[in-house]
Amino acid sequence: MSNSGGYCCGCSSLCQLLFEYDTPRIVHIKSRKVGLINRLFQMGILAYVIGWVFVWKKGYQEFDTVISSVTTKVKGITVTNDSMGVRIWDVADYIIPPQEETSFFVMTNMIVTPDQEQGHCAEMPGPSTTCTSDKNCTKGLVNIKSNGVQTGRCVAFNGTLQTCEVLAWCPVENDQTLPKPALLKDAENFTVLVKNNIQYPRFNFTKRNILPHINSTYLQQCIFHRLTDPECPIFRLGDIVQEAGENFQDMAIEGGVMGIQIKWECDLDQLWSKCVPRYIFRRLDNKDPDNNVAPGYNFRFSKYYKSANGTESRTLIKAYGIRFDVMVFGKAGKFNIIPTMINIGSGLALFGVATVLCDIIVLYLLKKRFYYREKKYKYVEDYEFAEKFNAAPIVISIQCGLALFDL
Amino acid sequence: MSNSGGYCCGCSSLCQLLFEYDTPRIVHIKSRKVGLINRLFQMGILAYVIGWVFVWKKGYQEFDTVISSVTTKVKGITVTNDSMGVRIWDVADYIIPPQEETSFFVMTNMIVTPDQEQGHCAEMPGPSTTCTSDKNCTKGLVNIKSNGVQTGRCVAFNGTLQTCEVLAWCPVENDQTLPKPALLKDAENFTVLVKNNIQYPRFNFTKRNILPHINSTYLQQCIFHRLTDPECPIFRLGDIVQEAGENFQDMAIEGGVMGIQIKWECDLDQLWSKCVPRYIFRRLDNKDPDNNVAPGYNFRFSKYYKSANGTESRTLIKAYGIRFDVMVFGKAGKFNIIPTMINIGSGLALFGVATVLCDIIVLYLLKKRFYYREKKYKYVEDYEFAEKFNAAPIVISIQCGLALFDL
Amino acid sequence: MSNSGGYCCGCSSLCQLLFEYDTPRIVHIKSRKVGLINRLFQMGILAYVIGWVFVWKKGYQEFDTVISSVTTKVKGITVTNDSMGVRIWDVADYIIPPQEETSFFVMTNMIVTPDQEQGHCAEMPGPSTTCTSDKNCTKGLVNIKSNGVQTGRCVAFNGTLQTCEVLAWCPVENDQTLPKPALLKDAENFTVLVKNNIQYPRFNFTKRNILPHINSTYLQQCIFHRLTDPECPIFRLGDIVQEAGENFQDMAIEGGVMGIQIKWECDLDQLWSKCVPRYIFRRLDNKDPDNNVAPGYNFRFSKYYKSANGTESRTLIKAYGIRFDVMVFGKAGKFNIIPTMINIGSGLALFGVATVLCDIIVLYLLKKRFYYREKKYKYVEDYEFAEKFNAAPIVISIQCGLALFDL
Repeated sequence: MSNSGGYCCGCSSLCQLLFEYDTPRIVHIKSRKVGLINRLFQMGILAYVIGWVFVWKKGYQEFDTVISSVTTKVKGITVTNDSMGVRIWDVADYIIPPQEETSFFVMTNMIVTPDQEQGHCAEMPGPSTTCTSDKNCTKGLVNIKSNGVQTGRCVAFNGTLQTCEVLAWCPVENDQTLPKPALLKDAENFTVLVKNNIQYPRFNFTKRNILPHINSTYLQQCIFHRLTDPECPIFRLGDIVQEAGENFQDMAIEGGVMGIQIKWECDLDQLWSKCVPRYIFRRLDNKDPDNNVAPGYNFRFSKYYKSANGTESRTLIKAYGIRFDVMVFGKAGKFNIIPTMINIGSGLALFGVATVLCDIIVLYLLKKRFYYREKKYKYVEDYEFAEKFNAAPIVISIQCGLALFDL
Repeated sequence: MSNSGGYCCGCSSLCQLLFEYDTPRIVHIKSRKVGLINRLFQMGILAYVIGWVFVWKKGYQEFDTVISSVTTKVKGITVTNDSMGVRIWDVADYIIPPQEETSFFVMTNMIVTPDQEQGHCAEMPGPSTTCTSDKNCTKGLVNIKSNGVQTGRCVAFNGTLQTCEVLAWCPVENDQTLPKPALLKDAENFTVLVKNNIQYPRFNFTKRNILPHINSTYLQQCIFHRLTDPECPIFRLGDIVQEAGENFQDMAIEGGVMGIQIKWECDLDQLWSKCVPRYIFRRLDNKDPDNNVAPGYNFRFSKYYKSANGTESRTLIKAYGIRFDVMVFGKAGKFNIIPTMINIGSGLALFGVATVLCDIIVLYLLKKRFYYREKKYKYVEDYEFAEKFNAAPIVISIQCGLALFDL
Repeated sequence: MSNSGGYCCGCSSLCQLLFEYDTPRIVHIKSRKVGLINRLFQMGILAYVIGWVFVWKKGYQEFDTVISSVTTKVKGITVTNDSMGVRIWDVADYIIPPQEETSFFVMTNMIVTPDQEQGHCAEMPGPSTTCTSDKNCTKGLVNIKSNGVQTGRCVAFNGTLQTCEVLAWCPVENDQTLPKPALLKDAENFTVLVKNNIQYPRFNFTKRNILPHINSTYLQQCIFHRLTDPECPIFRLGDIVQEAGENFQDMAIEGGVMGIQIKWECDLDQLWSKCVPRYIFRRLDNKDPDNNVAPGYNFRFSKYYKSANGTESRTLIKAYGIRFDVMVFGKAGKFNIIPTMINIGSGLALFGVATVLCDIIVLYLLKKRFYYREKKYKYVEDYEFAEKFNAAPIVISIQCGLALFDL
């Protein structure tokens, strides 16, 4: 640049910089062997960049993850006929709590302990609660399985057995025997309508799982079926459990957790109508009895009553049932210049690999390697500098390190 | 490397490798035309890399998505005056369930069916339930719109109409007519305090939507307003619905789902105080009556009572109202060397494109192309190898493929 | 390519293209100084690419974020002894609502207002409610702190004080004094079993926080401890709060929000068993009294009763307590060719930087720079073109721009 020729536009060297162009000098080798190898490498890289990165993995897109809102509505009625008589169960009875955010719980089985009142009564029999005299009981004792706080007295549990007395909601719950089959076994036929609204905030894209081409008439009578009705957002509970490879009646006894997964995998460079939800059903809790504490799914809740004289009583219900978690996930991709350029840039850089590999072949493996080396390389030696260094390598490197500041 | 000169530090070829330097040989062309084109290409790439990738799209940052926790507190009281008399409604009455994780439901309208008891009564009239004799009714029949299980008898619904008798919570609910305007229409003036705590775990960054410079005095009387109070976390329900372009009184009748979206878009390379939440309000459910099954938002729940003689009764409430989903999203970016280097590396690789494009011009389009080619290329032919191959190309490529192992 | 020699396979120029190979001509400089600098640069880049990008930041992996499902089960019993007498509290009493999706609320303190009925009564005293005559009260007035709607009359609140009468659930709640210590202070010893099922949908990977090598016997008696039992999914509430650096008894009075964070940071290229959850505890609400409206965490709910004559009454409970939010997050990485290639490509491109930097030293800083320049560059001048342009630079650039289309 500095020793440029006499021609100039009469301007500064900055101006000259504009009119320069550097291009590498090339050895153009006509060799079938090396040429073919080179083209094969290049084809491989091109195929990877175009086929895999761009076409298959959509390397020209940027991605966003979904945010979503879910509402559910269960429908169904069933009758139970047990010791307490015939009883009808509707949505307000078996959905607890009545509304949740992205999940719903359907009670399928229960242990009801009616008319509990605060008081003193005999604890349920067990290794630490059976007693023969007051000495076996410790006042104030509570453990993880207690129904109440021990008073220190030993009282009759029934005709033959004595247990420690507890301060508790009396009578205490007996959850030893669970109804089999499940009380609300007909929950298998209940249906649930799942409404899901999703958004990809980065792309300002929103959609609902009730697709626009679906009309109200269809919605009023359809039931989701993988093959015949894959877009119907109304699911039969039994079908959900069955698709997950489980048995509803078994699951209904002890309860469990099911996942209704809605997958929104969208390519927003394509038509709006091609972005559709896919439903997947999975069991989320652990069936394996070996490492399963508190198997199934249950929780306790109570209904409180007050008698005319003001004493409070409650009906304790240990509710077993299936919790359905609606889990929405997915990502959407849309063309964006940044990932495109990153991938093109990296792809171009990979082409350098082809040259490096071919050079190794040409310069080290071929018979005519010395001939090619001569053509490719121009050897220049820095004698002046070489003479300055003759010590051991370790010294050299130190000196070199210092020399960096002393060019 | 192997035919290196006589000078050496007396050490191995590994040592020599340290003191070598390869730099490509360049044709330095002083040409205004090509020089300018080259510089223009380079400027374009530089502008893209610096301006777009780094400044605009923050290509030097790595990103994390938010995890968040939300609590809400609604305030407001209203009076209704209907057939059941004057009645006051407070938070404990209209928020169901009393607490949820990231959403809250405000009941705005309802159909109350008091004093239901398990028993037999006439089903609501409808195409499949009106009857003239027991023959029209099927014992055990339940469908999706039933309130109970048919007993097979045909009984009087009112003076003029007969319907099938059902085993159900009696009397059955009549949800044909919905109060208009909505019973709790004053919910428009209720306020909600939304507390949001966010975290970007990768950057160990936490923040709350109640910003530190906001004091308690301000918080006790402020109401969110897009222009005057954009940082106040207390929202008037009517304002939320209005900002989303909806009419609260219309929505209150049948219910609906609103999204309170909190967007935390943070550049953590900047000041901590610049990372602030932005509130966006959207309606999430579908108003379109054409493909809308179960429009609005409602669910049923009941309050259970026990009479002195032990019979259970319940008040069934079909609650219509607005569910507000607080949806927190956002991503934070912070300087990280990896994306920076990826972008620099890819950017550098793109510079190669400028050279390739200019080479095409210089070597194929310019008048003096043969002159430049001569300068750039050194032609070398692998005669020896060329003679070995004279067959058809398909044979050659196979042989070449084999030759790879036989260099 | 066009002036290729006489040898050919007798085929088209496309065929010839296959048998060509271009490799740049290189100046091979034997210089200790420049060689060392060059190698140092290259070592640095190599160390960065291999050490940092690949080993440390796992640049060869693609990532997915977790989707998760959580169930919780609290255990514990406590006794309170206040003005209302001795009372036992079990799970069904203090967990409200009985089940939630990913969080649970443990009531630790409360203000109970029993036997409320709809009616007229004196409002709680306050700046806007104390009165001396009816003139001080406005019929229909409601504000944010009201318990009801003013009727416009001034009535006796107690022996000495008069307040405006309101239509409300009477008697109105008095939440001025909060029990200290908290009523259910023993909640510190309650335990919670957290079951967490995660999925990385992109890798089709699922796992539970109850690891397979844990057996039921261990699970029935273990309590999480950071050092001795880091894999036990049963947590003592007091331990959670303590690990977050808070005092349970202080927190129990006014309530608060705790985060139980489960972090699943998994390298799926490693053994399945190495992907384990990590538990982190954090307080999520704001303790700072300066900018804290509605400190702690509380909400109101009520139990409804009906007397024999049909009048409805309720027990209003303002529940203070700790909400535990189970927040699951994490990302999993697995080998994928795309990020690997992007990083290799970018890394290779960075090697070009070493050459550029060394070239600057060789060509501009060394004493022998003119010698090296001569070896590296071949100067070619486009005289013909140069003569055409002799105007001012601004004119030139315009003409150049046009000339692009006129080569």
